[in-house]
Amino acid sequence: MTQSPEVPSSHDALRTLRVALGERSYPIHIGPELLGDSRWLTPHLAGRQVMVVTNETVAPLYLEALKRGLPDDLEVRELVLPDGEATKNLASVERIWDALLAAGFNRRCTLIALGGGVIGDMVGYAAASYQRGVAFIQVPTTLLAQVDSSVGGKTGVNHPRGKNMIGAFWQPRAVLIDTDTLASLPPRELSAGLAEVIKYGLIRDADFLSWLEERMPALRRLDAAALTTAIERSCSLKAEIVAEDETEQGVRALLNLGHTFGHAIETHQGYGHWLHGEAVGAGMLMAAELSHRLGWLAEADVARVRAIIEAASLPLAVPADMTAEDFLALMRLDKKNLDARLRLILLRRLGDACIHDETPPEMLREFLEAFPRR
Amino acid sequence: MTQSPEVPSSHDALRTLRVALGERSYPIHIGPELLGDSRWLTPHLAGRQVMVVTNETVAPLYLEALKRGLPDDLEVRELVLPDGEATKNLASVERIWDALLAAGFNRRCTLIALGGGVIGDMVGYAAASYQRGVAFIQVPTTLLAQVDSSVGGKTGVNHPRGKNMIGAFWQPRAVLIDTDTLASLPPRELSAGLAEVIKYGLIRDADFLSWLEERMPALRRLDAAALTTAIERSCSLKAEIVAEDETEQGVRALLNLGHTFGHAIETHQGYGHWLHGEAVGAGMLMAAELSHRLGWLAEADVARVRAIIEAASLPLAVPADMTAEDFLALMRLDKKNLDARLRLILLRRLGDACIHDETPPEMLREFLEAFPRR
Repeated sequence: MTQSPEVPSSHDALRTLRVALGERSYPIHIGPELLGDSRWLTPHLAGRQVMVVTNETVAPLYLEALKRGLPDDLEVRELVLPDGEATKNLASVERIWDALLAAGFNRRCTLIALGGGVIGDMVGYAAASYQRGVAFIQVPTTLLAQVDSSVGGKTGVNHPRGKNMIGAFWQPRAVLIDTDTLASLPPRELSAGLAEVIKYGLIRDADFLSWLEERMPALRRLDAAALTTAIERSCSLKAEIVAEDETEQGVRALLNLGHTFGHAIETHQGYGHWLHGEAVGAGMLMAAELSHRLGWLAEADVARVRAIIEAASLPLAVPADMTAEDFLALMRLDKKNLDARLRLILLRRLGDACIHDETPPEMLREFLEAFPRR
Repeated sequence: MTQSPEVPSSHDALRTLRVALGERSYPIHIGPELLGDSRWLTPHLAGRQVMVVTNETVAPLYLEALKRGLPDDLEVRELVLPDGEATKNLASVERIWDALLAAGFNRRCTLIALGGGVIGDMVGYAAASYQRGVAFIQVPTTLLAQVDSSVGGKTGVNHPRGKNMIGAFWQPRAVLIDTDTLASLPPRELSAGLAEVIKYGLIRDADFLSWLEERMPALRRLDAAALTTAIERSCSLKAEIVAEDETEQGVRALLNLGHTFGHAIETHQGYGHWLHGEAVGAGMLMAAELSHRLGWLAEADVARVRAIIEAASLPLAVPADMTAEDFLALMRLDKKNLDARLRLILLRRLGDACIHDETPPEMLREFLEAFPRR
């Protein structure tokens, strides 16, 4: 009796999750070699007109591969924007609209966002508002976008007075995560993405947090199996939360762990100086320490949070030139603070976050003054 | 036995319709003396922050009355924009966003649109995109806005390359139609509103069309009872259609009778020269004549359409400087034309519209060349 060896096809590694939102449900495909394979994009195109929007860094790496994954009989346009958070503004969205109108694109066109979170957020908002809403597909190429911004339909741009102030909830038709794209990701951006991965463990899944503590070295050296598992688990946790609360009336707010502090840092430093994930990393440590002051987390729990943030090579301190007053002033405008009451996401336990709006103002101020500066 | 006379309260004339859209359902209140009465606005405010956006024409007439209808304990701001279709652009929406951010308004604020269709469309879009969507209330003060744009959640602004190209489907929390505001409406704008009223009869309700033929003189002299009936019937027909097809995948497109031709006229002439209702009036006559060429309407039917459009003092001819080529070029960009196929709303019978995309191109061109110029 002979045994025929099992030859794995290149798509044995493919995982598909589903974001359950009724008629707005969509799949997330995760795996290697997805770009360039027409099976993943074709079913989600609304019509024959397709515009791929990407940036100057990503275009030379993946634009041609993506276009190979589109059927031949389409009208395909491309728009390459500058890279960076500084371009995440209304002027860039207007460039997308102008390009769509110049090309005569109608309501059945499809936008494809190829890039990181900035591209995804901008293209999503451009799609949400073009002719009152057209189809779009997320093809995230950074870890941060893969585990966070490409899933869940939050789209938007920054305003000089605040981050993500202009935008819409607009769900993609599909999310295509080609894990091969992480090979080109700079280490600093990998770390920024790991901040959001750690976040899922902290807010909802203590087992995943333990797994991450163990696998952090493997993740940082881009071990493919570890990355795929981390992305899949992160997307799955996010998809669960989004399905429960699409427009952030309740539980979805937990995804903002570290973000209220983090947004204050980003706004104060000017967008683009701190990466979003870096600010969130420091912000999560702040949330953990404040949770300790409130008597919820033990000292040892805070130490675990500090250790995993450090292991991911994320900042453990906030900018030297930011005062407690700076934090307070910037956090009051944060859009998660309903009726000007300071609403923070904190940790009851590791793996269990809560919305808390009763931190005594004096405790908050003292805490902000005492937190380490860099 | 004595009979006590029945004294009608001022709100005996109040009618309330409901737009049935599940959790996005909302009431339309129609009647005299609604402005200034806090019963109609208060239940629909999302939080304590309220911004009233209006224009320079409407503000002196109705802004104070509207503010009297708001509870005392609110934070109320106002923004007065220039009047006219020329202001219906992204720059005006940015002024609204800037004002909201400068005032520190959060996600639980409410925008109130006080004015005609331009104000309603802009404020609705500003609300749709501010912090990914906040509450808004429509208080339309023109007949056109009362019977058409304030109901149904289509919001947006114009782009130099086309009308309403940037926008969103975003439903108001309530629509408040104070029929007293029509007393200040210029006759030309009254006629523009009547175009949309006539449209409802043409596309869906032959009895209403007959009623309008009889009551047109009363409507033009602002007979209160006739106006209330016309507004109620129009809103009711529109609410039915919107409930069937919120995002215009099918039947809602019938509301665009006359609009594809009309938009071409407005775009060609530059926004603000022809009123929207005037362009729609001429456009509906064009649709009727083309329907006759296709063998659907009898000559006598077209004569009825011409007569009622004339009775409403709306144009029966298109601009002298617009060629058939101008029409064709402008109509191809119209966002209702899926995949560049020219899709028109035409009349099978009076009271029965259809979507038609098989008009022979030669017939269309000949028809456009032959249609009367003014």
